[in-house]
Amino acid sequence: MVKAGIINVTGYAGVELARILARHPEVEIAAATGRRAAGRKLGEVFPHLASTDLVITEDVTESVDIVFSALPHAASAERLGPMVSDGVKAVDISADFRLKDESEYKDWYAVSHPYPDLLAEAAYGLPELNRGDVARARLVANPGCYPTAAILAMAPAVSAGLVETDVIVDAKTGVSGAGRKASVEYLYSEANENMRAYSLGGHRHMPEIRQGLRRLCPSVEPRVTFVPHVAPMTRGILATCYAPLKPGVGGREVRDAYESFYADAAFTHVAARPPATKHTLGGNDCIIYPTVDPRTDRLIVVSCIDNLVKGAAGQAAQNMNLMLGLPEAEGLRQLALYP
Amino acid sequence: MVKAGIINVTGYAGVELARILARHPEVEIAAATGRRAAGRKLGEVFPHLASTDLVITEDVTESVDIVFSALPHAASAERLGPMVSDGVKAVDISADFRLKDESEYKDWYAVSHPYPDLLAEAAYGLPELNRGDVARARLVANPGCYPTAAILAMAPAVSAGLVETDVIVDAKTGVSGAGRKASVEYLYSEANENMRAYSLGGHRHMPEIRQGLRRLCPSVEPRVTFVPHVAPMTRGILATCYAPLKPGVGGREVRDAYESFYADAAFTHVAARPPATKHTLGGNDCIIYPTVDPRTDRLIVVSCIDNLVKGAAGQAAQNMNLMLGLPEAEGLRQLALYP
Amino acid sequence: MVKAGIINVTGYAGVELARILARHPEVEIAAATGRRAAGRKLGEVFPHLASTDLVITEDVTESVDIVFSALPHAASAERLGPMVSDGVKAVDISADFRLKDESEYKDWYAVSHPYPDLLAEAAYGLPELNRGDVARARLVANPGCYPTAAILAMAPAVSAGLVETDVIVDAKTGVSGAGRKASVEYLYSEANENMRAYSLGGHRHMPEIRQGLRRLCPSVEPRVTFVPHVAPMTRGILATCYAPLKPGVGGREVRDAYESFYADAAFTHVAARPPATKHTLGGNDCIIYPTVDPRTDRLIVVSCIDNLVKGAAGQAAQNMNLMLGLPEAEGLRQLALYP
Amino acid sequence: MVKAGIINVTGYAGVELARILARHPEVEIAAATGRRAAGRKLGEVFPHLASTDLVITEDVTESVDIVFSALPHAASAERLGPMVSDGVKAVDISADFRLKDESEYKDWYAVSHPYPDLLAEAAYGLPELNRGDVARARLVANPGCYPTAAILAMAPAVSAGLVETDVIVDAKTGVSGAGRKASVEYLYSEANENMRAYSLGGHRHMPEIRQGLRRLCPSVEPRVTFVPHVAPMTRGILATCYAPLKPGVGGREVRDAYESFYADAAFTHVAARPPATKHTLGGNDCIIYPTVDPRTDRLIVVSCIDNLVKGAAGQAAQNMNLMLGLPEAEGLRQLALYP
Repeated sequence: MVKAGIINVTGYAGVELARILARHPEVEIAAATGRRAAGRKLGEVFPHLASTDLVITEDVTESVDIVFSALPHAASAERLGPMVSDGVKAVDISADFRLKDESEYKDWYAVSHPYPDLLAEAAYGLPELNRGDVARARLVANPGCYPTAAILAMAPAVSAGLVETDVIVDAKTGVSGAGRKASVEYLYSEANENMRAYSLGGHRHMPEIRQGLRRLCPSVEPRVTFVPHVAPMTRGILATCYAPLKPGVGGREVRDAYESFYADAAFTHVAARPPATKHTLGGNDCIIYPTVDPRTDRLIVVSCIDNLVKGAAGQAAQNMNLMLGLPEAEGLRQLALYP
Repeated sequence: MVKAGIINVTGYAGVELARILARHPEVEIAAATGRRAAGRKLGEVFPHLASTDLVITEDVTESVDIVFSALPHAASAERLGPMVSDGVKAVDISADFRLKDESEYKDWYAVSHPYPDLLAEAAYGLPELNRGDVARARLVANPGCYPTAAILAMAPAVSAGLVETDVIVDAKTGVSGAGRKASVEYLYSEANENMRAYSLGGHRHMPEIRQGLRRLCPSVEPRVTFVPHVAPMTRGILATCYAPLKPGVGGREVRDAYESFYADAAFTHVAARPPATKHTLGGNDCIIYPTVDPRTDRLIVVSCIDNLVKGAAGQAAQNMNLMLGLPEAEGLRQLALYP
Repeated sequence: MVKAGIINVTGYAGVELARILARHPEVEIAAATGRRAAGRKLGEVFPHLASTDLVITEDVTESVDIVFSALPHAASAERLGPMVSDGVKAVDISADFRLKDESEYKDWYAVSHPYPDLLAEAAYGLPELNRGDVARARLVANPGCYPTAAILAMAPAVSAGLVETDVIVDAKTGVSGAGRKASVEYLYSEANENMRAYSLGGHRHMPEIRQGLRRLCPSVEPRVTFVPHVAPMTRGILATCYAPLKPGVGGREVRDAYESFYADAAFTHVAARPPATKHTLGGNDCIIYPTVDPRTDRLIVVSCIDNLVKGAAGQAAQNMNLMLGLPEAEGLRQLALYP
Repeated sequence: MVKAGIINVTGYAGVELARILARHPEVEIAAATGRRAAGRKLGEVFPHLASTDLVITEDVTESVDIVFSALPHAASAERLGPMVSDGVKAVDISADFRLKDESEYKDWYAVSHPYPDLLAEAAYGLPELNRGDVARARLVANPGCYPTAAILAMAPAVSAGLVETDVIVDAKTGVSGAGRKASVEYLYSEANENMRAYSLGGHRHMPEIRQGLRRLCPSVEPRVTFVPHVAPMTRGILATCYAPLKPGVGGREVRDAYESFYADAAFTHVAARPPATKHTLGGNDCIIYPTVDPRTDRLIVVSCIDNLVKGAAGQAAQNMNLMLGLPEAEGLRQLALYP
């Protein structure tokens, strides 16, 4: 059994990873850390994990083969750096190793990167685009939830040159995206029966989306407008993406490009009808629906994921599988919960 | 125009009172206090009140005719005591003047009452039972949300002696009942798609319910089991109450007792069919449905209110109307929002 | 008192109009029709209206000064045509008199218009753009919910020529927009915890939005992509609109244009911060937040309304006020319900 | 591989069973029937099952080892009767084989039972109480969702004689309990932000609960008051049960009885703190919290389950495992989804 450690198990990404790994046939959770909850049983803090028999610790003291960090950015790189040097494979669920350009990282996260060498080395963990790099990596940057939905939505069109890389991403997330921390803003009474846009001045996932699209079509600098919204639901991201079609591109060509692009993907599917976030609830799938607005010659792509699974913990486990040479879908075959 | 002050306008009861008083034809909000929000415009903190032109202050500095306190218990009595002595009428939305027995107050709230004389003097502001006292009072204890629903549900049966005063109150509240303070427990992601019981060891509203029933039938000490639940909704309380019928009491007698008891009530109605919290959303009504389980000779009464209106701010305004000699329903005729 | 009739009171727009008119100081509901519910009391079918004393009838038999139709399209025009000829003022909440071009109406609604003359005569009831026409009209086409949010969002920029009229409207609605009819698709269990796009092949509100923008800038044919979404909430529309800024246009110019455009509007406000649908819940306001994405020179405008109030019944009452020479906000001053 | 058939896969219990069996390591879904959806792919009607490659048929035409019926009552017995005679093992998710007393069945379901012999033979599929009978049965009556929660909550106390069998069950269910059929009553807009009691005149699950308690303590005829409520959530049942303690029974004795009663149960756990429905979302667990109200000498037991899993499809699979000699938890180890 592979021994895995989860740093900061008490946030939503961490606890979701614990749920997944607790049922993974090849993995044993050897350590799970938390600051305030240290010393308590995992199943006492999270009753749905009562069947695990794990005590939360302050640090990863057990020897582990792979470690996942769900710490906030900056703290995450600080903690992972030494472990990677010590030969532990690592998946960073924080944002620390996503933006390859050190100065861009500094601009958006307001801190100098503590491990620029590791930043250069880390693989961007979107297996649909990057499977080989991930499989060879000792450090994987797990993508942001919005970038996962947005890049997967646009990748086939951008890489096939079907659109101008002038993209609007209008994304809607469930409230769990805001994390598990005390706040007034995300109280049930505030977030229920409420829909709103936020971060209109600029969200940290924008440069990550732009970087993702740039790699797919390096010849043109992409233009990306990204507007995130909070919807009154716990989980799920629906991203609606818009881009101008290049002259002469039609619906058939678009659909073919999407279907062939994802023909071999383990979790990303091109659907015949518009997806709904409920179709991915609790599962690791990304469902994508591309269509053409013939009145304005725009490509519209709707994609959806569970933000805590494919958008965080599930994708982290998928990356782990690849890094360890396990079947990509191992431990991730759970079907979405409906209704 | 009557000049009113609201102490602690930034909690849910306070801000709901501001919404109601801002449209009350006889009242002007002269002062609204808040600690952290002092100095900010009310409409900036609460955009739905943008049309009011009020700045939140630290204290009630304007001269006012009536003051409402939505402070936590203990702090509320401390603040109101001197104002009442100075001749300002007061409605206390906190729990400080509800329990008439000083030692019971100390047992449940773990603090000695700072103004025992005022405690003795204060009227319990449930107008359906106590209209005259309220009208004459200079200090009114606004009832708790659960006691409002439970006492109104049981009052006709208890006062007519139709049941043994051995009552189970199984109550379900919306999340706003937990107040507007940062917490993990009441985050959307925690409270959504979730139903749970709490305070099974004893809730402070139990002695208040018991006191209310005791007054209606002083000859027997009531036995009350009270189990509150949180339901995944913002507003509303549904109380389902159970009590053994006295021998020979039937459904017709019960219904007659309820209809005559509330024949003149401004806001409390006996319905022909079981009510739903949505029927009271945003309005000051209490809807009551009494029925008999002939298989077990039990009375079952379902009552519902909006916890922030009839369960807090609306009832406070209703009490104010009575204290000032205004029509009881003035400013409170808004119909519930459906759907 | 003005005597008003509501045709098809049993849908969500109709029953919301009943709620509003029941508290309107100058209006009496003289008739309310419904097919299946005919003969039943309004307050029996809708307990929140129990205080009204109205019986639902099959037809408007009482003489009325003004009539509102909340029938489905086609049926609505059929019913209103003769009444308007008889001298009754009318507000059509259906889509029948919105699209001025008879053939466009036929294309999108798949039926020939039964009253082309009335179509030509009807005023489009968006008072912010059309107050004078509405005041003089005997027949007003009440705008669609999405067009209300979208046109109000874009009107200042389009009419001032600040943008190319090449607009993307990404709109999110509450489920009540789907109406009050039995379905599986909109069951709670299907719509809860679910976000999805729909009508990607073309929605009937698109030509209405396009017509609205065309009038504001007739020199250029507008291009409009409109993608509606259903969010898991009962009420509210949030529209996020995108358009390319003309060269040199900046944020200050945009904000000035918006503020001056709506300086005198009774219900439409330009906010300093992004709005949330909860800020309009149950009220007739439209809140608009324009901003500029300097990285891509795009205008982004977020607008929000309660789809059943400003998006339907409230705007209908606002139009009625204008048609009857009453103060525009009469009966519509209710503040939004928060939380 | 065991070949299983699902009759009426298109309701919520049926489709949930398909989700579970599709991942069961020892089972293959050989047939899934539906009336209106016959001929369509299962994954087209239910996108979360897209990875199954099954076509919905009108009848079970494949040969199967075990069949599940999720038909409405009466229809279910009619369909299962002949199959059982033909040697197919069967789990009936409908109510047809639950009430052992033929005349009680007729009273509550208003139809004569078509197969009284099978009724006598069928095992009541609550493995915690009846494991041996289930393992030997060729026909199992899968318990109702409410009875599952209520009987498991009360069984230890009743069978140990700790309480008078005079029980109040106040149960709260998610909306999926009402099934997947077009209706106005259970539209999102009606059920959201709404809590209500229903079936106050008598619910069919009451006699089933009473029968369950009678078996545990045959010497006294139980008295059961059962009031179901609908809460605004998709899944979950929380049952709060009340019964008078026998003289001298205290909290320690109660807890010991509960813990020993369920010491070997695969899915039913006695918790140290009150459970929440979210702790069981998507899993087959039943979590039970017994406590004592010392002020009134009442036992209060809170239990919770996912109504579609332990309350329907999961328990059906658990029964199947026992009937086939498979490990009881096979295919049912999925952890609850949190948050």
